[in-house]
Amino acid sequence: MAASSLDQIVNLAKRRGYVFQASEIYGGLNSCWDYGPLGAELKRNVKDAWWHSMVHTRRDVVGLDSAVLQHPKVWQASGHLDGFSDPLIDCKKCKARFRADDMDNATCPERHNAAINDDCKSHFTEPRDFNLMFKTTLGPVEDAGATAYLRPETAQGIFCNYLNVQTTGRLKPPFGVAQIGKSFRNEITPGNFIFRTREFEQMEMEFFVPPEKWEEWYAYWRQERFDWYVKLGVNPEKLRLRDHDADELAHYSNATADIEYELPIGWKELEGVASRSDFDLKRHSEHSGRTLEYFDGQTRERFTPYVIEPAAGVDRALLVFLVDAYDEEEIDGETRTVLRLHPRLAPIKVAVFPLVKKDGMPELAMEIEDSLRARGITTFYDKSGAIGRRYRRQDEVGTPWCITVDGDTKEHGTVTLRDRDTMTQERVSAAELPSLIAERLAP
Amino acid sequence: MAASSLDQIVNLAKRRGYVFQASEIYGGLNSCWDYGPLGAELKRNVKDAWWHSMVHTRRDVVGLDSAVLQHPKVWQASGHLDGFSDPLIDCKKCKARFRADDMDNATCPERHNAAINDDCKSHFTEPRDFNLMFKTTLGPVEDAGATAYLRPETAQGIFCNYLNVQTTGRLKPPFGVAQIGKSFRNEITPGNFIFRTREFEQMEMEFFVPPEKWEEWYAYWRQERFDWYVKLGVNPEKLRLRDHDADELAHYSNATADIEYELPIGWKELEGVASRSDFDLKRHSEHSGRTLEYFDGQTRERFTPYVIEPAAGVDRALLVFLVDAYDEEEIDGETRTVLRLHPRLAPIKVAVFPLVKKDGMPELAMEIEDSLRARGITTFYDKSGAIGRRYRRQDEVGTPWCITVDGDTKEHGTVTLRDRDTMTQERVSAAELPSLIAERLAP
Repeated sequence: MAASSLDQIVNLAKRRGYVFQASEIYGGLNSCWDYGPLGAELKRNVKDAWWHSMVHTRRDVVGLDSAVLQHPKVWQASGHLDGFSDPLIDCKKCKARFRADDMDNATCPERHNAAINDDCKSHFTEPRDFNLMFKTTLGPVEDAGATAYLRPETAQGIFCNYLNVQTTGRLKPPFGVAQIGKSFRNEITPGNFIFRTREFEQMEMEFFVPPEKWEEWYAYWRQERFDWYVKLGVNPEKLRLRDHDADELAHYSNATADIEYELPIGWKELEGVASRSDFDLKRHSEHSGRTLEYFDGQTRERFTPYVIEPAAGVDRALLVFLVDAYDEEEIDGETRTVLRLHPRLAPIKVAVFPLVKKDGMPELAMEIEDSLRARGITTFYDKSGAIGRRYRRQDEVGTPWCITVDGDTKEHGTVTLRDRDTMTQERVSAAELPSLIAERLAP
Repeated sequence: MAASSLDQIVNLAKRRGYVFQASEIYGGLNSCWDYGPLGAELKRNVKDAWWHSMVHTRRDVVGLDSAVLQHPKVWQASGHLDGFSDPLIDCKKCKARFRADDMDNATCPERHNAAINDDCKSHFTEPRDFNLMFKTTLGPVEDAGATAYLRPETAQGIFCNYLNVQTTGRLKPPFGVAQIGKSFRNEITPGNFIFRTREFEQMEMEFFVPPEKWEEWYAYWRQERFDWYVKLGVNPEKLRLRDHDADELAHYSNATADIEYELPIGWKELEGVASRSDFDLKRHSEHSGRTLEYFDGQTRERFTPYVIEPAAGVDRALLVFLVDAYDEEEIDGETRTVLRLHPRLAPIKVAVFPLVKKDGMPELAMEIEDSLRARGITTFYDKSGAIGRRYRRQDEVGTPWCITVDGDTKEHGTVTLRDRDTMTQERVSAAELPSLIAERLAP
């Protein structure tokens, strides 16, 4: 049985150290979350899987890591300073603020959150645009010249470095530049756990192509990115590609498809694959006065590349992997909760149990644990409680394999290897365990 | 010959795609830097090596990934709101600002940056404290209640999560919590390339121990962290441990040692290993009203753990790895520039060259490249110029191995494998190359 509500995931995430509320001991901070030990590993694994697939296994994509703080002109050129805003309405009487495009849910704080009424409306201002970029001040002087913004997306850092990356790497379109990093948006209505937060992490790649090839590459990345989730175990029936209607397209895009997943809160955007034409390079070229083109020394050809952008969210991907992996089943009259995470994503790969706390079994178990850790395979050592209970604890956090050290281990050098999904057990050599697990984890 | 100035490193970093100035096409942004394709890989490798050594190979340390934005009370409890500041002096005449503790270098902007004189001083205010935290506003209302700060260190995110991490992981001191992430400090005088920047990345670990064990663990981590740099190839003669004098210690510390490296700009702090006593947990306990202790259910023992903190900077470590690896030597009357980076840190592991651009050699070379990439081994394909020139290009960016596909490859399935440091060449099987390289890269 799949997760029927986000709360099931939120509770498990908190109870087992996947995700905690940020500043929880101080009452929390609205929509900010900290990743606990298991969440930090899962996040690393999601990002590594993306980087492996988008950069390391490809000869046509390189990486980049640009700063959160950039020159304000970057956001002027990108259009974020002028156009990246939500319309807000102020109440001149009670000083409350509302999103003009979400007045159906607006409540009055003065009248104990009752719905707004005509009296409220008589005190309202006209809607005004509120920019979603976080503002701060660089250096000790708080004047306009020192205003800086936290980047609302990582993509612009790639466009600004287009020329440096292309020339130092002697790259020829089609080629891509990939980046993973934090972005910040001062959302008016964040929410739904880690689905929409003000601080979030992005995995974006800008793929620069000759203008006449954009449709071909758009089709390629649209499918490639959909397949990435499926390869990492996500149920394809819960995933769909939704093409934007013409009137829905952003001003810079001539084609966009959203990869959506059916969360317990409905179908939601997980990733966007956008054809951005030459909009960004041309804008930065105009605003900076620098020529941002490609020039082919052999053919004497010169053009501004078109761009295909698959833009994914780390936190959203992580949420989908958790929700999609969540399963409850009836085993021997008891409910087993199991996270069927892809082994490459699972935070703990192998749990190691001594059958009993004596006869040298704990020492032997820890030796085996060390041999796995030396290979970079994450482990968890647990000596407490009945074996069945220890299995259940690991099932709930998604550990694909558990091994038990017993009386035979010392004598024959073998351990029991138990599989999370099939719950079958096999007898394997302890010495060969690191190689065996490494093989099963190989991409 | 080692690097004689930082400029040598800055130039190579820019020319070859290690580090670019942020927003360069807009004239740059003071002290902000973007990591290019090679820099992004080097940074990943530095962080992975740290995480492998601090988390994955240890059973007593877990990871965490807390948010940049936290409740303002966190910074009140930590002391950052009150005490994390530089003293500044304003000139009431020309509006310039100066660091009170650095007046020797102060110049007057009105008199074309001439040194300040007595007339200047007659217009000066008394020194006032300027907080180094970047301030911003959460949500659409710019009132005091919505003020938030960009974290100036990752450590406090760990202390605030101490109880959640300890209980969900059933951890018993001594245990550590490690975290890698961006921090922000509004430095008055950033500079020296990526050594001191306003936005930077930290690798911090808080190790919680029984109070009576702090000295033992402090000694352990002091040495362990020094050894980490040496194991990754840093010249131990350029590294030193410098213990803080009693009057130099921060208010929360009873012992601190800096790991310093001799950069071309002098001996500089690369990492700090601090014994923080129970200062942080006690402060957060007082401010939050939550008991942040360890209680042992078996022994009925209860205590506030002491903390040992090794705090490293990713950007500084990266700079030291680059500077330390830089070498110039005379080969056949020509200067060879070579980055002797540890193979695990090198951005490109293997460069693949077809000897000539015909006879199927490029196709064969790309096949070999793909076999390496499938294993996650980073490669660079280069078909242009004499082989000797291609070797030099790779030497300069630190690629440990180059392989050349020639006439014998098709016939005998072998390639030439050339070593960066010794410049010796051996003949190896192309089919066995991925395993051979993977073995040499294994930790």
